[in-house]
Amino acid sequence: MLWFASLFCCLILAQDIGNAAETEKPSETQSCNPDMCDLLREFGAMTEYLRAVETRLTDSETRLTDSETRLKESENQILELRNKEGTKVIFSAATGGGDRHIGPFNTDTTLIYRTVITNIGNAYSPSTGIFVAPVAGAYYFTIFLHAGGSNTAALFLYKNNHYMLMTHDFPTNADRADTGGNAVLLQLQRGDQVYVRMAAHTHVWGSDYHTTFSGFLVTQM
Amino acid sequence: MLWFASLFCCLILAQDIGNAAETEKPSETQSCNPDMCDLLREFGAMTEYLRAVETRLTDSETRLTDSETRLKESENQILELRNKEGTKVIFSAATGGGDRHIGPFNTDTTLIYRTVITNIGNAYSPSTGIFVAPVAGAYYFTIFLHAGGSNTAALFLYKNNHYMLMTHDFPTNADRADTGGNAVLLQLQRGDQVYVRMAAHTHVWGSDYHTTFSGFLVTQM
Amino acid sequence: MLWFASLFCCLILAQDIGNAAETEKPSETQSCNPDMCDLLREFGAMTEYLRAVETRLTDSETRLTDSETRLKESENQILELRNKEGTKVIFSAATGGGDRHIGPFNTDTTLIYRTVITNIGNAYSPSTGIFVAPVAGAYYFTIFLHAGGSNTAALFLYKNNHYMLMTHDFPTNADRADTGGNAVLLQLQRGDQVYVRMAAHTHVWGSDYHTTFSGFLVTQM
Repeated sequence: MLWFASLFCCLILAQDIGNAAETEKPSETQSCNPDMCDLLREFGAMTEYLRAVETRLTDSETRLTDSETRLKESENQILELRNKEGTKVIFSAATGGGDRHIGPFNTDTTLIYRTVITNIGNAYSPSTGIFVAPVAGAYYFTIFLHAGGSNTAALFLYKNNHYMLMTHDFPTNADRADTGGNAVLLQLQRGDQVYVRMAAHTHVWGSDYHTTFSGFLVTQM
Repeated sequence: MLWFASLFCCLILAQDIGNAAETEKPSETQSCNPDMCDLLREFGAMTEYLRAVETRLTDSETRLTDSETRLKESENQILELRNKEGTKVIFSAATGGGDRHIGPFNTDTTLIYRTVITNIGNAYSPSTGIFVAPVAGAYYFTIFLHAGGSNTAALFLYKNNHYMLMTHDFPTNADRADTGGNAVLLQLQRGDQVYVRMAAHTHVWGSDYHTTFSGFLVTQM
Repeated sequence: MLWFASLFCCLILAQDIGNAAETEKPSETQSCNPDMCDLLREFGAMTEYLRAVETRLTDSETRLTDSETRLKESENQILELRNKEGTKVIFSAATGGGDRHIGPFNTDTTLIYRTVITNIGNAYSPSTGIFVAPVAGAYYFTIFLHAGGSNTAALFLYKNNHYMLMTHDFPTNADRADTGGNAVLLQLQRGDQVYVRMAAHTHVWGSDYHTTFSGFLVTQM
């Protein structure tokens, strides 16, 4: 009779374990003695179950650590891309000068483009005429000149102390104009200077629209 | 004797718990009564074990939530970079016009470059001659002209209603040609218009190869 | 009396389970017989607890798998962006030629710009004068010429066998110079060739500074 009650109780227990999430706990008044071996079997099964859960957790932790490492690397690469994308160096300037000629002067002179059209990154100085590379990279520069024909027009583009390219035209009859231009892609280190020199005894037309100096960062390197 | 059996059974149990993943469950026929305190000890140990597992799980959940947040942020940043990289605005067009002069006209006229060489993004309209910025950013524009010497050649680049730069040359002896060009980097808002006006009483050579208008998005801003 | 001891023991047990992480296990000498139903109740509660832990783990695994998929996709997109950002194609070259005219020749001739100023990516060959697109994309090209006035100066920019644009000027009085330039954005496939042809019976000034050919990859496509 006691054994029967015990068995009955164990069936209840089995149901309890099987439906632990859905059912109420046995009432406080229930009092019984299930077969100990059933309990041990359930206990063993639960231990096994817990070990399986722990194994899965360990796997998840490993995967999570791996993901975190990859995510950190991705974040670093995104940051690098964003920094590159966010580094904007873009300028255009004209000589200004009130619609009259600038020059001729007796010596080569740095031509200052005083009318800033665009100067994103402030790498070009309209007070010195000098562009200073804020980051290492490849930059595009282009110059255009307009000048009356009474004098030679000759501009030189410099990288630091090196003359890189020029545009010029010889004098011609009085009312004629000369135009010219050139362009170059330069690889610059941070701090490299790029500027335009006007040759001695030459001139360019000074306005906000004609004689221009433009440049931009094509790519960081 | 009963106590001895009980102890023996508990050793089996301990082994079971210790090797739950590797060993079979106790056979159905096993029937025994281990010391209750051993079972309680095992039960307590398993509870502790489960709590430790839960603590690790909670840690993992926290790390996972953190990773998900960072991943979402990375995805947003990648999307932004891809959108920027994917926004391509690039055009080149020539006047066309069948190898004869376009102009002179009695008034300033928007010069329509009808021969499209490249028009990625369709921001330039070959029917109106107007470029409309599809996104805010810095854009590079360059114009070149070719013209016979019998008339002045004069082109103005406009941003909306503002005259930004020009290239021109005066008339000269009949069979001579004039060439000219200029370039500028402009910061535009979405919808800003850039186009070229030809001055009244001037002309340019109309062909698919000489007088050109080009531009591209350097960087979104 | 036995029942009382049993109850007492179960209170100890309950405390044990409740504070498993903080308290010591019951001492080896403790020997008692708690009410079996208390134990069953605790066992059921622990099973429920374990199931809840497993449910959370399953959720975490799902989230982790989802994160890993998204992370892989992000990594692929970053790789693509980095590849694009890392593909640098940038060149500038001048004819060189020792400060004398190149040409005139009796036939159209590919103009070889022998003085390399910049050649990132080595897509331009200073021995053939030909630029070969290493990747599909939109490229910017610009040419400038300088020439004495005694002959026509005429340069044609080619994409593969197609003449795309030109710059030229007619001869004029002996000591005068001609300048000219043009620019174009071209969509190229990998392997497309871009180069400059000098028209028969024309010439350009050969120096390291005047007559130039530049180009760069604006964007991959």
